Amino acid sequence: MNKDKIGTIMIVGLGHIGGSLSLAIKKTYKDKVKIIGVDRNKKTLLQAKKTKKFAALLSAPRAKEVEASDVIFLCVSIKQIPTILKSLSKTKLKQNAVVTDVVSTKEEILSLAKKFLPKKTTFVGGHPIAGSEASGFLSANPKLFEKKIFIAAGAKGRRAGILKIKSIWKGVGSKVVNMSPKEHDKIFSLLSHTPHVLSFGLGKITNSKLSKKEIDGYAGTSYKDLTRISSSSTSLWAEIFISNKKNLLADIALFKRYLVDLEKAIRKNNNRQIIKAINQTTRKP
Amino acid sequence: MNKDKIGTIMIVGLGHIGGSLSLAIKKTYKDKVKIIGVDRNKKTLLQAKKTKKFAALLSAPRAKEVEASDVIFLCVSIKQIPTILKSLSKTKLKQNAVVTDVVSTKEEILSLAKKFLPKKTTFVGGHPIAGSEASGFLSANPKLFEKKIFIAAGAKGRRAGILKIKSIWKGVGSKVVNMSPKEHDKIFSLLSHTPHVLSFGLGKITNSKLSKKEIDGYAGTSYKDLTRISSSSTSLWAEIFISNKKNLLADIALFKRYLVDLEKAIRKNNNRQIIKAINQTTRKP
Repeated sequence: MNKDKIGTIMIVGLGHIGGSLSLAIKKTYKDKVKIIGVDRNKKTLLQAKKTKKFAALLSAPRAKEVEASDVIFLCVSIKQIPTILKSLSKTKLKQNAVVTDVVSTKEEILSLAKKFLPKKTTFVGGHPIAGSEASGFLSANPKLFEKKIFIAAGAKGRRAGILKIKSIWKGVGSKVVNMSPKEHDKIFSLLSHTPHVLSFGLGKITNSKLSKKEIDGYAGTSYKDLTRISSSSTSLWAEIFISNKKNLLADIALFKRYLVDLEKAIRKNNNRQIIKAINQTTRKP
Repeated sequence: MNKDKIGTIMIVGLGHIGGSLSLAIKKTYKDKVKIIGVDRNKKTLLQAKKTKKFAALLSAPRAKEVEASDVIFLCVSIKQIPTILKSLSKTKLKQNAVVTDVVSTKEEILSLAKKFLPKKTTFVGGHPIAGSEASGFLSANPKLFEKKIFIAAGAKGRRAGILKIKSIWKGVGSKVVNMSPKEHDKIFSLLSHTPHVLSFGLGKITNSKLSKKEIDGYAGTSYKDLTRISSSSTSLWAEIFISNKKNLLADIALFKRYLVDLEKAIRKNNNRQIIKAINQTTRKP
Protein backbone atom coordinates (compact mmCIF):
# COMPACT_ATOMS: atom_id res chain seq x y z
CA MET A 1 0.00 0.00 0.00
CA ASN A 2 1.04 3.54 -0.68
CA LYS A 3 1.92 4.83 2.76
CA ASP A 4 0.88 8.35 1.75
CA LYS A 5 -2.69 7.17 1.41
CA ILE A 6 -3.28 5.50 4.74
CA GLY A 7 -5.20 8.49 6.10
CA THR A 8 -7.16 8.63 9.34
CA ILE A 9 -7.63 5.55 11.47
CA MET A 10 -10.07 5.30 14.36
CA ILE A 11 -9.38 2.59 16.92
CA VAL A 12 -12.32 1.87 19.20
CA GLY A 13 -11.18 0.10 22.37
CA LEU A 14 -7.65 0.73 23.65
CA GLY A 15 -7.07 -2.48 25.60
CA HIS A 16 -4.20 -4.92 25.04
CA ILE A 17 -5.06 -5.49 21.35
CA GLY A 18 -6.42 -2.03 20.44
CA GLY A 19 -3.62 -0.29 22.33
CA SER A 20 -0.94 -2.46 20.74
CA LEU A 21 -2.47 -1.95 17.29
CA SER A 22 -2.49 1.85 17.74
CA LEU A 23 1.19 1.88 18.69
CA ALA A 24 2.10 -0.61 15.94
CA ILE A 25 0.34 1.39 13.21
CA LYS A 26 1.91 4.64 14.42
CA LYS A 27 5.32 2.96 14.51
CA THR A 28 4.92 1.71 10.94
CA TYR A 29 3.22 4.64 9.21
CA LYS A 30 4.43 7.56 11.36
CA ASP A 31 3.22 10.93 10.03
CA LYS A 32 1.30 9.31 7.16
CA VAL A 33 -1.37 8.27 9.63
CA LYS A 34 -3.62 10.09 12.07
CA ILE A 35 -4.90 7.87 14.86
CA ILE A 36 -8.06 8.64 16.76
CA GLY A 37 -8.31 6.56 19.93
CA VAL A 38 -11.65 5.77 21.53
CA ASP A 39 -12.19 4.17 24.93
CA ARG A 40 -14.98 4.52 27.47
CA ASN A 41 -12.47 4.24 30.33
CA LYS A 42 -11.04 7.63 31.40
CA LYS A 43 -7.91 6.10 32.93
CA THR A 44 -7.17 4.35 29.64
CA LEU A 45 -7.53 7.63 27.74
CA LEU A 46 -5.06 9.31 30.10
CA GLN A 47 -2.57 6.45 29.67
CA ALA A 48 -2.96 6.67 25.88
CA LYS A 49 -2.55 10.46 25.93
CA LYS A 50 0.86 10.16 27.60
CA THR A 51 2.25 8.30 24.57
CA LYS A 52 1.57 11.32 22.30
CA LYS A 53 0.75 8.91 19.45
CA PHE A 54 -2.90 9.89 19.10
CA ALA A 55 -4.31 12.82 17.08
CA ALA A 56 -7.43 12.71 19.25
CA LEU A 57 -8.79 10.69 22.16
CA LEU A 58 -12.51 10.28 22.77
CA SER A 59 -14.72 8.43 25.22
CA ALA A 60 -17.13 7.36 22.43
CA PRO A 61 -17.04 7.31 18.60
CA ARG A 62 -18.30 10.86 18.00
CA ALA A 63 -19.86 11.61 14.58
CA LYS A 64 -17.34 14.28 13.58
CA GLU A 65 -14.32 11.99 13.99
CA VAL A 66 -16.10 8.92 12.60
CA GLU A 67 -16.92 10.90 9.47
CA ALA A 68 -13.24 11.81 9.05
CA SER A 69 -12.04 8.20 9.40
CA ASP A 70 -10.88 6.05 6.49
CA VAL A 71 -10.59 2.90 8.58
CA ILE A 72 -12.34 2.06 11.85
CA PHE A 73 -10.95 -0.79 13.94
CA LEU A 74 -13.33 -2.26 16.51
CA CYS A 75 -11.13 -3.61 19.29
CA VAL A 76 -13.85 -4.16 21.85
CA SER A 77 -15.52 -7.36 23.03
CA ILE A 78 -18.29 -8.90 20.93
CA LYS A 79 -21.00 -7.74 23.35
CA GLN A 80 -20.24 -4.06 22.68
CA ILE A 81 -20.14 -4.47 18.89
CA PRO A 82 -23.88 -4.02 18.10
CA THR A 83 -24.07 -0.70 20.01
CA ILE A 84 -20.99 0.65 18.27
CA LEU A 85 -22.09 -0.51 14.81
CA LYS A 86 -25.47 1.16 15.38
CA SER A 87 -23.82 4.43 16.39
CA LEU A 88 -21.49 4.32 13.37
CA SER A 89 -24.40 3.69 11.02
CA LYS A 90 -26.07 6.87 12.24
CA THR A 91 -23.14 9.01 11.03
CA LYS A 92 -22.18 10.01 7.49
CA LEU A 93 -19.45 7.40 7.13
CA LYS A 94 -16.94 8.24 4.37
CA GLN A 95 -17.76 6.88 0.91
CA ASN A 96 -14.80 4.46 1.05
CA ALA A 97 -14.73 3.85 4.80
CA VAL A 98 -13.78 0.38 5.97
CA VAL A 99 -14.86 -1.03 9.30
CA THR A 100 -12.99 -4.04 10.70
CA ASP A 101 -12.65 -5.91 13.99
CA VAL A 102 -10.39 -8.19 16.03
CA VAL A 103 -12.83 -10.36 18.01
CA SER A 104 -12.16 -14.07 18.46
CA THR A 105 -15.23 -15.39 16.63
CA LYS A 106 -16.08 -14.53 13.05
CA GLU A 107 -19.51 -15.91 12.08
CA GLU A 108 -21.44 -13.72 14.49
CA ILE A 109 -19.44 -10.56 13.76
CA LEU A 110 -20.09 -10.78 10.01
CA SER A 111 -23.82 -11.17 10.53
CA LEU A 112 -23.79 -8.19 12.90
CA ALA A 113 -21.88 -6.10 10.36
CA LYS A 114 -24.37 -7.02 7.62
CA LYS A 115 -27.26 -6.22 9.93
CA PHE A 116 -26.10 -2.86 11.26
CA LEU A 117 -23.73 -1.22 8.78
CA PRO A 118 -24.88 0.72 5.69
CA LYS A 119 -24.76 -1.34 2.48
CA LYS A 120 -22.02 0.81 0.94
CA THR A 121 -19.72 0.44 3.97
CA THR A 122 -17.04 -2.19 3.60
CA PHE A 123 -16.49 -4.57 6.52
CA VAL A 124 -13.65 -7.04 7.08
CA GLY A 125 -13.75 -9.64 9.85
CA GLY A 126 -10.29 -9.97 11.34
CA HIS A 127 -8.51 -12.03 13.99
CA PRO A 128 -4.87 -11.38 14.90
CA ILE A 129 -3.47 -14.53 16.57
CA ALA A 130 -1.52 -12.54 19.10
CA GLY A 131 -3.54 -12.26 22.28
CA SER A 132 -2.37 -13.25 25.73
CA GLU A 133 -3.65 -13.22 29.29
CA ALA A 134 -2.59 -9.55 29.48
CA SER A 135 -5.19 -6.78 29.37
CA GLY A 136 -5.34 -3.00 29.39
CA PHE A 137 -3.51 -0.20 27.59
CA LEU A 138 -0.51 -0.43 29.92
CA SER A 139 0.23 -3.88 28.46
CA ALA A 140 0.18 -2.49 24.89
CA ASN A 141 3.17 -3.50 22.81
CA PRO A 142 3.91 -2.03 19.33
CA LYS A 143 5.67 -5.29 18.34
CA LEU A 144 2.79 -7.56 19.38
CA PHE A 145 1.78 -8.44 15.82
CA GLU A 146 5.23 -8.93 14.34
CA LYS A 147 5.68 -12.42 12.84
CA LYS A 148 2.17 -13.37 13.96
CA ILE A 149 -0.75 -14.61 11.88
CA PHE A 150 -3.62 -12.29 10.96
CA ILE A 151 -6.72 -14.11 9.76
CA ALA A 152 -9.15 -12.33 7.45
CA ALA A 153 -12.38 -14.29 7.82
CA GLY A 154 -15.49 -12.87 6.24
CA ALA A 155 -16.05 -9.55 4.49
CA LYS A 156 -18.66 -7.48 2.73
CA GLY A 157 -18.12 -4.62 0.29
CA ARG A 158 -15.33 -3.24 -1.84
CA ARG A 159 -12.29 -5.29 -2.74
CA ALA A 160 -10.02 -2.22 -2.35
CA GLY A 161 -11.19 -1.78 1.23
CA ILE A 162 -10.57 -5.42 2.04
CA LEU A 163 -7.06 -5.19 0.58
CA LYS A 164 -6.42 -2.03 2.60
CA ILE A 165 -7.06 -3.85 5.88
CA LYS A 166 -4.81 -6.75 4.89
CA SER A 167 -2.14 -4.27 3.89
CA ILE A 168 -2.23 -2.56 7.29
CA TRP A 169 -1.81 -5.92 9.05
CA LYS A 170 1.11 -6.75 6.78
CA GLY A 171 2.49 -3.31 7.61
CA VAL A 172 2.58 -4.10 11.33
CA GLY A 173 4.44 -7.34 10.60
CA SER A 174 1.76 -10.02 10.43
CA LYS A 175 1.32 -12.80 7.90
CA VAL A 176 -2.16 -12.55 6.39
CA VAL A 177 -4.25 -15.70 5.92
CA ASN A 178 -7.78 -16.02 4.46
CA MET A 179 -10.46 -18.32 5.81
CA SER A 180 -14.26 -18.61 5.88
CA PRO A 181 -15.91 -17.44 9.13
CA LYS A 182 -17.34 -20.94 9.60
CA GLU A 183 -13.95 -22.62 9.23
CA HIS A 184 -12.39 -20.02 11.50
CA ASP A 185 -14.84 -20.61 14.33
CA LYS A 186 -14.51 -24.40 14.08
CA ILE A 187 -10.71 -24.20 14.22
CA PHE A 188 -10.51 -21.68 17.04
CA SER A 189 -13.01 -23.51 19.18
CA LEU A 190 -10.29 -26.18 19.38
CA LEU A 191 -7.14 -24.06 19.26
CA SER A 192 -8.22 -21.28 21.59
CA HIS A 193 -11.68 -21.51 23.16
CA THR A 194 -11.45 -25.11 24.44
CA PRO A 195 -7.94 -24.46 25.87
CA HIS A 196 -9.46 -21.57 27.83
CA VAL A 197 -12.29 -23.79 29.08
CA LEU A 198 -9.72 -26.33 30.31
CA SER A 199 -7.38 -23.77 31.83
CA PHE A 200 -10.16 -21.97 33.73
CA GLY A 201 -11.40 -25.34 35.02
CA LEU A 202 -8.01 -26.56 36.20
CA GLY A 203 -7.34 -23.27 38.00
CA LYS A 204 -10.77 -23.32 39.59
CA ILE A 205 -10.65 -26.90 40.87
CA THR A 206 -7.07 -26.68 42.10
CA ASN A 207 -7.73 -23.43 43.94
CA SER A 208 -10.79 -24.97 45.57
CA LYS A 209 -8.79 -27.95 46.89
CA LEU A 210 -5.31 -26.58 47.59
CA SER A 211 -4.05 -23.47 49.37
CA LYS A 212 -2.19 -20.73 47.51
CA LYS A 213 0.91 -21.72 49.46
CA GLU A 214 0.70 -25.32 48.24
CA ILE A 215 0.17 -24.25 44.64
CA ASP A 216 2.93 -21.62 44.63
CA GLY A 217 5.27 -23.94 46.49
CA TYR A 218 4.93 -27.11 44.45
CA ALA A 219 3.59 -26.32 40.98
CA GLY A 220 5.94 -27.34 38.20
CA THR A 221 5.91 -26.09 34.64
CA SER A 222 3.06 -28.38 33.57
CA TYR A 223 0.58 -26.78 35.97
CA LYS A 224 1.92 -23.27 35.32
CA ASP A 225 1.67 -23.65 31.54
CA LEU A 226 -1.85 -25.06 31.73
CA THR A 227 -3.18 -22.32 34.01
CA ARG A 228 -1.40 -19.26 32.57
CA ILE A 229 -4.45 -18.23 30.52
CA SER A 230 -6.82 -18.85 33.46
CA SER A 231 -5.92 -15.32 34.56
CA SER A 232 -7.58 -13.98 31.38
CA SER A 233 -10.69 -11.82 31.71
CA THR A 234 -13.63 -14.06 32.64
CA SER A 235 -16.22 -11.60 31.29
CA LEU A 236 -14.46 -11.38 27.92
CA TRP A 237 -14.27 -15.16 27.67
CA ALA A 238 -17.89 -15.62 28.72
CA GLU A 239 -18.81 -13.56 25.64
CA ILE A 240 -16.50 -15.54 23.37
CA PHE A 241 -17.91 -18.86 24.63
CA ILE A 242 -21.45 -17.69 23.86
CA SER A 243 -20.43 -16.31 20.47
CA ASN A 244 -18.95 -19.67 19.45
CA LYS A 245 -21.56 -21.70 21.30
CA LYS A 246 -22.27 -24.34 18.64
CA ASN A 247 -18.66 -25.39 18.03
CA LEU A 248 -17.62 -25.08 21.66
CA LEU A 249 -20.48 -27.20 23.01
CA ALA A 250 -19.57 -29.91 20.49
CA ASP A 251 -15.93 -29.83 21.61
CA ILE A 252 -16.83 -29.85 25.32
CA ALA A 253 -19.04 -32.89 24.64
CA LEU A 254 -16.07 -34.66 23.00
CA PHE A 255 -13.92 -33.78 25.99
CA LYS A 256 -16.46 -35.19 28.43
CA ARG A 257 -16.58 -38.41 26.41
CA TYR A 258 -12.77 -38.58 26.55
CA LEU A 259 -12.85 -38.19 30.35
CA VAL A 260 -15.47 -40.92 30.70
CA ASP A 261 -13.37 -43.33 28.58
CA LEU A 262 -10.27 -42.51 30.58
CA GLU A 263 -12.05 -42.91 33.92
CA LYS A 264 -13.25 -46.40 32.94
CA ALA A 265 -9.76 -47.46 31.90
CA ILE A 266 -8.16 -46.09 35.10
CA ARG A 267 -10.82 -47.77 37.25
CA LYS A 268 -9.95 -51.11 35.63
CA ASN A 269 -6.17 -50.51 36.08
CA ASN A 270 -5.98 -51.21 32.37
CA ASN A 271 -2.72 -49.76 31.02
CA ARG A 272 -3.43 -50.53 27.39
CA GLN A 273 -6.89 -49.02 27.55
CA ILE A 274 -5.51 -45.85 29.21
CA ILE A 275 -2.85 -45.52 26.51
CA LYS A 276 -5.55 -45.93 23.86
CA ALA A 277 -7.66 -43.25 25.56
CA ILE A 278 -4.86 -40.66 25.77
CA ASN A 279 -3.04 -41.45 22.53
CA GLN A 280 -3.33 -39.03 19.60
CA THR A 281 -4.20 -40.16 16.13
CA THR A 282 -2.87 -37.47 13.85
CA ARG A 283 -4.92 -36.65 10.77
CA LYS A 284 -3.12 -36.27 7.48
CA PRO A 285 -1.52 -34.10 6.29
CA MET B 1 27.47 -33.96 53.93
CA ASN B 2 31.14 -34.78 53.91
CA LYS B 3 31.86 -35.14 50.22
CA ASP B 4 34.56 -37.69 50.98
CA LYS B 5 31.92 -40.07 52.23
CA ILE B 6 29.49 -40.12 49.35
CA GLY B 7 30.80 -43.45 48.08
CA THR B 8 29.25 -45.58 45.34
CA ILE B 9 25.94 -44.66 43.80
CA MET B 10 23.92 -46.95 41.56
CA ILE B 11 21.38 -45.29 39.30
CA VAL B 12 18.84 -47.70 37.82
CA GLY B 13 17.18 -46.21 34.75
CA LEU B 14 19.12 -43.68 32.66
CA GLY B 15 16.24 -41.79 31.06
CA HIS B 16 15.68 -38.03 31.30
CA ILE B 17 15.60 -38.02 35.13
CA GLY B 18 18.10 -40.84 35.86
CA GLY B 19 20.49 -39.57 33.19
CA SER B 20 20.29 -35.98 34.44
CA LEU B 21 20.75 -37.14 38.03
CA SER B 22 23.87 -39.15 37.10
CA LEU B 23 25.44 -36.15 35.40
CA ALA B 24 24.37 -33.77 38.17
CA ILE B 25 25.84 -35.96 40.93
CA LYS B 26 29.09 -36.43 39.01
CA LYS B 27 29.28 -32.68 38.39
CA THR B 28 28.82 -31.95 42.10
CA TYR B 29 30.89 -34.69 43.73
CA LYS B 30 33.47 -35.41 41.01
CA ASP B 31 36.06 -38.01 42.11
CA LYS B 32 34.40 -38.47 45.50
CA VAL B 33 31.69 -40.50 43.85
CA LYS B 34 31.60 -43.66 41.75
CA ILE B 35 28.48 -43.93 39.62
CA ILE B 36 27.18 -47.25 38.38
CA GLY B 37 24.60 -46.79 35.64
CA VAL B 38 21.95 -49.41 34.91
CA ASP B 39 19.60 -49.46 31.96
CA ARG B 40 17.97 -52.31 30.06
CA ASN B 41 18.32 -50.39 26.80
CA LYS B 42 21.64 -51.05 24.99
CA LYS B 43 21.51 -47.79 23.05
CA THR B 44 21.11 -45.85 26.29
CA LEU B 45 24.13 -47.62 27.77
CA LEU B 46 26.22 -46.65 24.73
CA GLN B 47 25.09 -43.02 24.98
CA ALA B 48 25.93 -43.02 28.70
CA LYS B 49 29.34 -44.60 28.06
CA LYS B 50 30.35 -41.75 25.74
CA THR B 51 30.10 -39.25 28.63
CA LYS B 52 32.85 -41.10 30.56
CA LYS B 53 31.05 -40.22 33.80
CA PHE B 54 30.20 -43.80 34.83
CA ALA B 55 32.46 -46.23 36.69
CA ALA B 56 30.39 -49.11 35.30
CA LEU B 57 27.38 -49.58 33.04
CA LEU B 58 25.10 -52.61 33.33
CA SER B 59 21.93 -53.83 31.67
CA ALA B 60 20.49 -54.99 35.04
CA PRO B 61 21.35 -54.45 38.73
CA ARG B 62 23.91 -57.25 39.11
CA ALA B 63 24.55 -58.56 42.68
CA LYS B 64 28.25 -57.65 42.75
CA GLU B 65 27.66 -53.96 41.99
CA VAL B 66 24.51 -53.74 44.12
CA GLU B 67 26.49 -55.06 47.08
CA ALA B 68 29.12 -52.33 46.55
CA SER B 69 26.56 -49.53 46.45
CA ASP B 70 25.90 -47.06 49.27
CA VAL B 71 22.92 -45.46 47.59
CA ILE B 72 20.63 -46.91 44.92
CA PHE B 73 18.42 -44.52 42.97
CA LEU B 74 15.46 -46.11 41.20
CA CYS B 75 14.75 -43.89 38.19
CA VAL B 76 12.39 -46.23 36.37
CA SER B 77 8.64 -46.16 36.03
CA ILE B 78 6.46 -47.45 38.85
CA LYS B 79 5.62 -50.64 36.96
CA GLN B 80 9.24 -51.80 36.97
CA ILE B 81 9.79 -51.05 40.65
CA PRO B 82 8.57 -54.38 42.19
CA THR B 83 10.86 -56.48 39.94
CA ILE B 84 13.88 -54.32 40.77
CA LEU B 85 13.14 -54.27 44.51
CA LYS B 86 12.80 -58.06 44.46
CA SER B 87 16.15 -58.47 42.71
CA LEU B 88 17.84 -56.04 45.15
CA SER B 89 16.45 -57.92 48.13
CA LYS B 90 18.08 -61.12 46.88
CA THR B 91 21.56 -59.55 47.15
CA LYS B 92 23.62 -58.84 50.25
CA LEU B 93 22.83 -55.13 50.37
CA LYS B 94 25.37 -53.09 52.38
CA GLN B 95 24.57 -52.65 56.06
CA ASN B 96 23.90 -48.93 55.59
CA ALA B 97 22.60 -49.01 52.04
CA VAL B 98 19.84 -46.55 51.14
CA VAL B 99 17.37 -47.15 48.34
CA THR B 100 15.41 -44.22 46.96
CA ASP B 101 13.25 -43.36 43.96
CA VAL B 102 11.93 -40.51 41.79
CA VAL B 103 8.49 -41.72 40.69
CA SER B 104 5.57 -39.29 40.60
CA THR B 105 3.37 -41.01 43.21
CA LYS B 106 4.50 -41.72 46.75
CA GLU B 107 1.89 -43.82 48.61
CA GLU B 108 2.30 -46.90 46.41
CA ILE B 109 6.10 -46.72 46.28
CA LEU B 110 6.42 -46.69 50.06
CA SER B 111 4.20 -49.73 50.44
CA LEU B 112 6.21 -51.54 47.73
CA ALA B 113 9.48 -50.67 49.51
CA LYS B 114 8.11 -51.99 52.81
CA LYS B 115 6.89 -55.14 51.09
CA PHE B 116 10.00 -56.02 49.11
CA LEU B 117 13.08 -54.56 50.79
CA PRO B 118 14.88 -56.16 53.77
CA LYS B 119 13.89 -54.62 57.11
CA LYS B 120 17.37 -53.20 57.71
CA THR B 121 17.50 -51.42 54.36
CA THR B 122 16.61 -47.73 54.46
CA PHE B 123 14.21 -46.40 51.85
CA VAL B 124 13.35 -42.78 51.00
CA GLY B 125 10.48 -41.88 48.70
CA GLY B 126 11.52 -38.95 46.53
CA HIS B 127 10.03 -36.70 43.87
CA PRO B 128 12.13 -34.06 42.11
CA ILE B 129 9.75 -31.46 40.59
CA ALA B 130 11.81 -31.13 37.46
CA GLY B 131 10.39 -33.36 34.79
CA SER B 132 9.38 -32.29 31.32
CA GLU B 133 7.98 -33.81 28.16
CA ALA B 134 11.55 -34.84 27.26
CA SER B 135 12.67 -38.45 27.56
CA GLY B 136 15.80 -40.55 27.09
CA PHE B 137 19.45 -40.18 28.08
CA LEU B 138 20.17 -37.79 25.20
CA SER B 139 17.93 -35.22 26.89
CA ALA B 140 19.87 -35.54 30.17
CA ASN B 141 20.93 -32.22 31.67
CA PRO B 142 23.27 -31.92 34.69
CA LYS B 143 21.59 -28.63 35.68
CA LEU B 144 18.04 -30.06 35.61
CA PHE B 145 17.59 -30.03 39.38
CA GLU B 146 19.17 -26.66 40.13
CA LYS B 147 16.77 -24.30 41.92
CA LYS B 148 14.05 -26.94 41.74
CA ILE B 149 12.04 -28.52 44.54
CA PHE B 150 12.83 -32.05 45.75
CA ILE B 151 10.08 -33.60 47.83
CA ALA B 152 10.93 -36.29 50.36
CA ALA B 153 7.64 -38.07 50.98
CA GLY B 154 7.70 -41.26 53.00
CA ALA B 155 10.65 -43.23 54.36
CA LYS B 156 11.55 -46.28 56.36
CA GLY B 157 14.78 -47.03 58.23
CA ARG B 158 17.77 -45.10 59.49
CA ARG B 159 17.69 -41.34 59.98
CA ALA B 160 21.27 -41.01 58.72
CA GLY B 161 20.28 -42.68 55.45
CA ILE B 162 17.31 -40.38 55.00
CA LEU B 163 19.53 -37.33 55.62
CA LYS B 164 22.05 -38.65 53.14
CA ILE B 165 19.48 -38.67 50.33
CA LYS B 166 18.32 -35.15 51.16
CA SER B 167 21.93 -34.02 51.23
CA ILE B 168 22.57 -35.40 47.74
CA TRP B 169 19.53 -33.53 46.38
CA LYS B 170 20.73 -30.35 48.05
CA GLY B 171 24.12 -31.03 46.50
CA VAL B 172 22.68 -31.02 42.98
CA GLY B 173 20.99 -27.68 43.70
CA SER B 174 17.46 -28.56 44.81
CA LYS B 175 15.45 -27.19 47.70
CA VAL B 176 14.33 -30.11 49.90
CA VAL B 177 10.77 -30.21 51.21
CA ASN B 178 9.13 -32.87 53.44
CA MET B 179 5.59 -34.13 53.01
CA SER B 180 3.51 -37.20 53.82
CA PRO B 181 2.97 -39.61 50.89
CA LYS B 182 -0.78 -39.08 51.19
CA GLU B 183 -0.49 -35.29 51.05
CA HIS B 184 1.94 -35.58 48.16
CA ASP B 185 -0.36 -37.72 46.05
CA LYS B 186 -3.35 -35.46 46.70
CA ILE B 187 -1.39 -32.33 45.73
CA PHE B 188 0.21 -33.81 42.61
CA SER B 189 -3.02 -35.25 41.33
CA LEU B 190 -4.02 -31.58 40.88
CA LEU B 191 -0.67 -29.99 40.04
CA SER B 192 0.65 -32.64 37.66
CA HIS B 193 -1.57 -35.65 36.93
CA THR B 194 -4.78 -33.76 36.09
CA PRO B 195 -2.85 -31.29 33.87
CA HIS B 196 -1.57 -34.32 31.94
CA VAL B 197 -5.09 -35.72 31.63
CA LEU B 198 -6.27 -32.38 30.20
CA SER B 199 -3.31 -31.91 27.90
CA PHE B 200 -3.53 -35.42 26.43
CA GLY B 201 -7.27 -34.91 25.89
CA LEU B 202 -6.93 -31.55 24.15
CA GLY B 203 -4.22 -32.90 21.85
CA LYS B 204 -6.25 -36.01 21.05
CA ILE B 205 -9.51 -34.21 20.25
CA THR B 206 -7.86 -31.43 18.26
CA ASN B 207 -5.83 -33.90 16.21
CA SER B 208 -8.95 -35.94 15.50
CA LYS B 209 -10.82 -32.87 14.15
CA LEU B 210 -8.12 -30.70 12.56
CA SER B 211 -5.28 -31.45 10.17
CA LYS B 212 -1.65 -31.06 11.22
CA LYS B 213 -1.41 -28.15 8.76
CA GLU B 214 -4.29 -26.33 10.43
CA ILE B 215 -2.85 -26.88 13.91
CA ASP B 216 0.69 -25.90 12.99
CA GLY B 217 -0.53 -22.94 10.95
CA TYR B 218 -2.94 -21.33 13.39
CA ALA B 219 -2.16 -22.44 16.94
CA GLY B 220 -1.30 -19.57 19.26
CA THR B 221 0.53 -19.78 22.56
CA SER B 222 -2.56 -20.88 24.50
CA TYR B 223 -2.91 -24.13 22.52
CA LYS B 224 0.84 -24.71 22.42
CA ASP B 225 1.23 -24.25 26.18
CA LEU B 226 -1.70 -26.52 26.93
CA THR B 227 -0.52 -29.36 24.68
CA ARG B 228 3.24 -29.24 25.30
CA ILE B 229 3.10 -32.10 27.82
CA SER B 230 0.79 -34.17 25.58
CA SER B 231 3.97 -35.36 23.88
CA SER B 232 5.00 -37.07 27.13
CA SER B 233 5.26 -40.87 27.21
CA THR B 234 1.74 -42.32 27.23
CA SER B 235 2.87 -45.62 28.80
CA LEU B 236 4.66 -43.81 31.65
CA TRP B 237 1.60 -41.68 32.31
CA ALA B 238 -0.78 -44.64 32.16
CA GLU B 239 1.21 -46.12 35.07
CA ILE B 240 1.15 -42.84 37.03
CA PHE B 241 -2.63 -42.49 36.53
CA ILE B 242 -3.17 -46.00 37.92
CA SER B 243 -0.74 -45.43 40.77
CA ASN B 244 -2.66 -42.31 41.87
CA LYS B 245 -6.06 -43.70 40.92
CA LYS B 246 -8.04 -42.63 43.99
CA ASN B 247 -7.07 -38.94 43.92
CA LEU B 248 -7.10 -38.67 40.15
CA LEU B 249 -10.59 -40.17 39.73
CA ALA B 250 -11.88 -37.69 42.31
CA ASP B 251 -10.32 -34.78 40.42
CA ILE B 252 -11.58 -36.00 37.03
CA ALA B 253 -15.08 -36.22 38.57
CA LEU B 254 -14.78 -32.59 39.71
CA PHE B 255 -13.66 -31.59 36.24
CA LYS B 256 -16.62 -33.33 34.61
CA ARG B 257 -18.97 -31.52 36.98
CA TYR B 258 -17.30 -28.22 36.03
CA LEU B 259 -17.84 -28.96 32.33
CA VAL B 260 -21.50 -29.83 32.91
CA ASP B 261 -22.06 -26.54 34.81
CA LEU B 262 -20.32 -24.59 32.09
CA GLU B 263 -22.25 -26.32 29.29
CA LYS B 264 -25.56 -25.42 30.94
CA ALA B 265 -24.54 -21.77 31.32
CA ILE B 266 -23.34 -21.52 27.69
CA ARG B 267 -26.51 -23.19 26.41
CA LYS B 268 -28.56 -20.54 28.19
CA ASN B 269 -26.34 -17.68 26.85
CA ASN B 270 -26.03 -16.69 30.49
CA ASN B 271 -22.92 -14.48 30.87
CA ARG B 272 -23.13 -14.22 34.65
CA GLN B 273 -23.55 -17.96 35.07
CA ILE B 274 -20.56 -18.64 32.78
CA ILE B 275 -18.41 -16.19 34.75
CA LYS B 276 -19.48 -17.94 37.95
CA ALA B 277 -18.59 -21.34 36.45
CA ILE B 278 -15.09 -20.32 35.32
CA ASN B 279 -14.19 -17.96 38.15
CA GLN B 280 -11.62 -19.11 40.73
CA THR B 281 -12.24 -18.83 44.43
CA THR B 282 -8.83 -18.81 46.02
CA ARG B 283 -8.44 -20.59 49.35
CA LYS B 284 -6.51 -18.85 52.10
CA PRO B 285 -3.65 -18.43 52.64
